[in-house]
Amino acid sequence: MSFDRLIKAIVKTQNPSVAGLDPKLDYIPDYIKEAAYAEYGKNLEGAAQALWVFNKGLIDALCDIVPAVKPQLAYYEMYGWYGVRTFQKTVEYAKSKGMFVITDGKRNDIGTTMQAYAKAHLGLTEVDGETAEAFGSDALTVNAYLGTDGVKPAVELCKESDKGIFVLVKTSNPSSGELQDRKLDDGLTVYRTMGNMCEKWGEELQGKYGYSGVGAVVGATYPEQLSELRKELPHTFFLVPGYGAQGGGAKDVAGAFDKNGLGAIINSSRGIMCAWKKEEGLDPKDYAAAARREAVRMRDEIVSFIGEIKLN
Amino acid sequence: MSFDRLIKAIVKTQNPSVAGLDPKLDYIPDYIKEAAYAEYGKNLEGAAQALWVFNKGLIDALCDIVPAVKPQLAYYEMYGWYGVRTFQKTVEYAKSKGMFVITDGKRNDIGTTMQAYAKAHLGLTEVDGETAEAFGSDALTVNAYLGTDGVKPAVELCKESDKGIFVLVKTSNPSSGELQDRKLDDGLTVYRTMGNMCEKWGEELQGKYGYSGVGAVVGATYPEQLSELRKELPHTFFLVPGYGAQGGGAKDVAGAFDKNGLGAIINSSRGIMCAWKKEEGLDPKDYAAAARREAVRMRDEIVSFIGEIKLN
Repeated sequence: MSFDRLIKAIVKTQNPSVAGLDPKLDYIPDYIKEAAYAEYGKNLEGAAQALWVFNKGLIDALCDIVPAVKPQLAYYEMYGWYGVRTFQKTVEYAKSKGMFVITDGKRNDIGTTMQAYAKAHLGLTEVDGETAEAFGSDALTVNAYLGTDGVKPAVELCKESDKGIFVLVKTSNPSSGELQDRKLDDGLTVYRTMGNMCEKWGEELQGKYGYSGVGAVVGATYPEQLSELRKELPHTFFLVPGYGAQGGGAKDVAGAFDKNGLGAIINSSRGIMCAWKKEEGLDPKDYAAAARREAVRMRDEIVSFIGEIKLN
Repeated sequence: MSFDRLIKAIVKTQNPSVAGLDPKLDYIPDYIKEAAYAEYGKNLEGAAQALWVFNKGLIDALCDIVPAVKPQLAYYEMYGWYGVRTFQKTVEYAKSKGMFVITDGKRNDIGTTMQAYAKAHLGLTEVDGETAEAFGSDALTVNAYLGTDGVKPAVELCKESDKGIFVLVKTSNPSSGELQDRKLDDGLTVYRTMGNMCEKWGEELQGKYGYSGVGAVVGATYPEQLSELRKELPHTFFLVPGYGAQGGGAKDVAGAFDKNGLGAIINSSRGIMCAWKKEEGLDPKDYAAAARREAVRMRDEIVSFIGEIKLN
């Protein structure tokens, strides 16, 4: 019912970062793709197999130093149900290796439909008296344009478990301001208003370390807003995309953290997944080792700005 | 690159309604579930099989009188990748029966990630030179909290095909106003601002009958806003949920249409899927016939308010 488990994993690894698993085929070494196509064909099934092998290698290489992974559902849906099956296997494998899994699906709907998404990704599905786990992640990103009706069903489910959600507040993309930066008639921006709603929704999911189970997505590309929101939303844990490839640096994300170095987890996707392409002369079979080196570099860079991470 | 194909199907059937396919297990007759569980077990796979058989029966019974179906992805994801496979089969089958398929996924993301969702649901996926169709719907619902970056990749893809998107503008749920009804500092509401963006995004996807390929989701439960938006957004086709079970009636949706009876398609999910439960003494094996009777009743009720549907 909070992010306490994630927070403990961050403190244990002294690493407030999450590895995005957005495995485009371009990011995957040829030897993995060739083996997958040879076995399943150059089709959705073969692509999904390549994604799975690539992900497994990354998880093995990162699991003892990176506390969490964030698979982006779009890159699995793209390969149809074969891709979604790879997503499910990825979540299961990352959890078996002790990682906290944040599913980036930006899901949103109302009432029983939102409840269905929450069950799919965070809970259990009932089948006439039996229960089964559909995907079983630890956290899900959520878009709250629909208001409380779109968030409450997930919050209710999280009450009965140790899971959480991250609500889109101020996203990292260039046009995020078109709506999110607009001021409402009370003078507050849309993103600030959404942030305040996160604080309110989180009241029922307070954890032991000051943060609730309703977090917020706030982009690294808007460091001022990141610092503003850290101050104004003291109980809301941040998931921060936009580090690295999108232009945000460690200095830009420093404002996302509280005085104990808690309060945020920084995502890097391409930087970690494609690290093997940047090391000259590297054997592509060492792609996972290169990912690990980049994850260490990123961790050290962020920690150099925030110092030791301590529990409140 | 527009909704012309949908519009022609509406005119041909003289029916501006879409059957929601949100197949909860509760909605499915026991004889279907028992057969599915006997073959695959009382588990995600068995449930997904029951959904598939139920959907197939509905599509067979509706395809000549209802122009479109709207599967709600949450109710398939709930059953894991087995459920997503049923979703794929449902889309494929509905298309083979000549129906227009609107996938209700409320997907949203930015840049190449949104492009991945668009390819997954509306386009083709490349696998190292080969292409394959992941899900292949005709339209997708989209949440545009992220601004133009979250919509443009789908619009670009629709340019090269005859597909479209429906952007959430004013949703049917009780709390939709928390954000959507708030006024921005220029005096316009958030939903109206979002509606204006739909008009703008749609400029590149104009069709022959006055409507673009960027539609809007506007709930039947807010008839005043529905009429207001019909006047203010002349090129934006509406997908209208909330009819029936959520409380909106045919009178409430009349304002969604233009003078030719075009401009909107009204969704009914539970009303059609659960019609068999409301007919006393009905053999559950006749569930699809009951769905057809309800679809006819709904069509006639709506058409009694709008008259003959004509092309501009």
